[in-house]
Amino acid sequence: MREVYIIGVGMTRFGKFQDQSLKSLSKEAVESALKHAGIDKKQLQVASVGNAYAGIATGQESIRGQVVLRAMGIGGLPVFNVENACASSASAFIVSWMDIALGLHDVGLALGMEKMYLEDRDKRLSLFSASMDQDIIQAFKKMAEASAKDAAQKSGSKGEGGGKRSLFMDVYALAARWHMNKYGTTQRQLAVISAKNHQNSSLNPYSQYQESMTVEEVLAAPLVSYPLTRPMCAPVGDGAAAVILCSGDALKKLGAQKPVKIRAAVQVSGRDRGMDAPDIGELAADKAYQMAGLGPEDINVAEVHDATAFGELRAIENMKFCAAGQGGPFSEAGNTALTGKLPVNPSGGLESKGHPVGATGAAQITEIVWQLRGEAGKRQVEGARIGLTENGGGNIGLEEAAMVITILERS
Amino acid sequence: MREVYIIGVGMTRFGKFQDQSLKSLSKEAVESALKHAGIDKKQLQVASVGNAYAGIATGQESIRGQVVLRAMGIGGLPVFNVENACASSASAFIVSWMDIALGLHDVGLALGMEKMYLEDRDKRLSLFSASMDQDIIQAFKKMAEASAKDAAQKSGSKGEGGGKRSLFMDVYALAARWHMNKYGTTQRQLAVISAKNHQNSSLNPYSQYQESMTVEEVLAAPLVSYPLTRPMCAPVGDGAAAVILCSGDALKKLGAQKPVKIRAAVQVSGRDRGMDAPDIGELAADKAYQMAGLGPEDINVAEVHDATAFGELRAIENMKFCAAGQGGPFSEAGNTALTGKLPVNPSGGLESKGHPVGATGAAQITEIVWQLRGEAGKRQVEGARIGLTENGGGNIGLEEAAMVITILERS
Repeated sequence: MREVYIIGVGMTRFGKFQDQSLKSLSKEAVESALKHAGIDKKQLQVASVGNAYAGIATGQESIRGQVVLRAMGIGGLPVFNVENACASSASAFIVSWMDIALGLHDVGLALGMEKMYLEDRDKRLSLFSASMDQDIIQAFKKMAEASAKDAAQKSGSKGEGGGKRSLFMDVYALAARWHMNKYGTTQRQLAVISAKNHQNSSLNPYSQYQESMTVEEVLAAPLVSYPLTRPMCAPVGDGAAAVILCSGDALKKLGAQKPVKIRAAVQVSGRDRGMDAPDIGELAADKAYQMAGLGPEDINVAEVHDATAFGELRAIENMKFCAAGQGGPFSEAGNTALTGKLPVNPSGGLESKGHPVGATGAAQITEIVWQLRGEAGKRQVEGARIGLTENGGGNIGLEEAAMVITILERS
Repeated sequence: MREVYIIGVGMTRFGKFQDQSLKSLSKEAVESALKHAGIDKKQLQVASVGNAYAGIATGQESIRGQVVLRAMGIGGLPVFNVENACASSASAFIVSWMDIALGLHDVGLALGMEKMYLEDRDKRLSLFSASMDQDIIQAFKKMAEASAKDAAQKSGSKGEGGGKRSLFMDVYALAARWHMNKYGTTQRQLAVISAKNHQNSSLNPYSQYQESMTVEEVLAAPLVSYPLTRPMCAPVGDGAAAVILCSGDALKKLGAQKPVKIRAAVQVSGRDRGMDAPDIGELAADKAYQMAGLGPEDINVAEVHDATAFGELRAIENMKFCAAGQGGPFSEAGNTALTGKLPVNPSGGLESKGHPVGATGAAQITEIVWQLRGEAGKRQVEGARIGLTENGGGNIGLEEAAMVITILERS
């Protein structure tokens, strides 16, 4: 297996851009990444493109990657269109990485893109449901709503915000309640995570939200599904992010500056399991650490999949940054803050940087590459040498339909 | 790069199965392939799933592979959902091949599936348009219709069948007229190709159409878009096909019988080009022959992408089975018939075996594996040792958005 490096990254700001298309967002991200890598688009030899919802959102299925790449004058190379819900572009990254590691090509692109701000709000919310099994989604919806109502009654909450929303928030809320019950995790601990991410994203010019929030403000915000308040949940958004990969053999020829080495790239999909069987995130982390020959103690900075604050809490346990059940206290003690011992989501995470689904995995890698190159501006984690990304997507049984973990190291 | 083999294949019959779902079709194909390989589903370590239109057709985007695999009790392994229009499952095959060739896993699945017979006929026809750039499809439609009207007038044809149809037939018809004009290709030569494919599929129990047609019957059939009559065009259909791949290292452990070696697996996507620049199919064939260390003279049997009879004509030129411009006479002389010197589309091809888009690439590989193992029944090509598949998908500029070629050899 050949060594593969990341030599450039780029992304659009995430947000609500109703005058932009998948083509224009992708062009901005890819051109930024090419410039960052110091190469021309003609030097690209393979491309993988991650997107989750364009088929439903825009009618463009099948060849979505070729369509956006052609619009920026890129063609005649292998293009793989890869889907894995919220983990689409991290999965695309793995496909380009495999191609280069195998020796088929030397220079590749991984692009993630999503356009979610549709005129029709019902259609926008319905996008997420494509990331679950259509045959069981109706039955689950009823169960989740009954459970949320029950939990809201017990907590004395009015349960407002229980109307139109993504079903995923109910899934996360169910899991959070299970965790609170088993480990004594508190709603305040979730609010600490959310406030930390909003603080970080106030330092990130690419973030959808750039205003900090206090723990009290997060707790006082409207409830989406108990215990999750609105700032604890990722918004919908538009955006794109791009990563340029290159073989170790070609680094010198391309004159690559500050290349970041891919130490591990792992994808695993969920399965039916019992409540006490290991989470797919934990299994994927074990595989990634093994591939890298590293452990959680080696990680200096991480971007994890905080589709909700509970997502981050569970992820830092699965990545073994803390013991199982200790994600709440570990976060509350400030360990994952920008100045903590293991900063998590310095970008602001999905909660506050934003979550244009197909773009998220590539954007996480983009942030870690910036961090490892010392280019993260006001949110720079000092001395970061090894970083991790954790990107989950979709829902199957009790867990993510796909989980992608990368471990990256500065050269 | 490790050697990779195909150890089992399976497919559903192609056709109109309104009581079947993607789950049931896929289950039938995967279970057949596992049985053919002599392994259990628990032995699968990686899966790639090709599908083109489920997002639009059924609302199931993002994690379509995980959804159908879970329904047959397969999970906990990496799943890549791959799209490339009509080349979706051949592209998925390449992803699983890369994974195993790289040494990440030993046993993998490539699955193709499609459900096109929707209740709503307009929606069914609209599926194909997802394989083109949505922004230019309207402009192109007008141009193609004007050209077809003009050609029909010149040929004295009444041009019936010019109503609702897939725009792809117009694209193929335009290209056919260009070829007729440049090389003197005749409509009868296209009819010979179509009649040969209908004859072959009368011997194939997996075919959508199992009645043979004469050249005269093909010519007398309703016109779709001059020079293409209805039997020269692939129908829509439902179906699934599955391929089990395995590393050379694991062959013995699995007790694999009659493994088929993957000599080449190449994907290239189209680009903007001038009319006289080489077709992407030709470039892909050159790459595939180079990877295999073989030439067109080594091929004993081929399955090519005859979305129309002209597609086969152009493919056999691109594969260099005959000289450029000679696809018509070469076919008319019987070279590509089952008893000819280089049988093409022994299965009946897309025209007559059928074309459930996302399943087609895997079904081509399935047919070639059966041929190389001597398991093709009444349509067996005697002594076939090396086979080729050519699978194109979508449309970008003048050519396919994706072109996948494999070269396979019996052990």
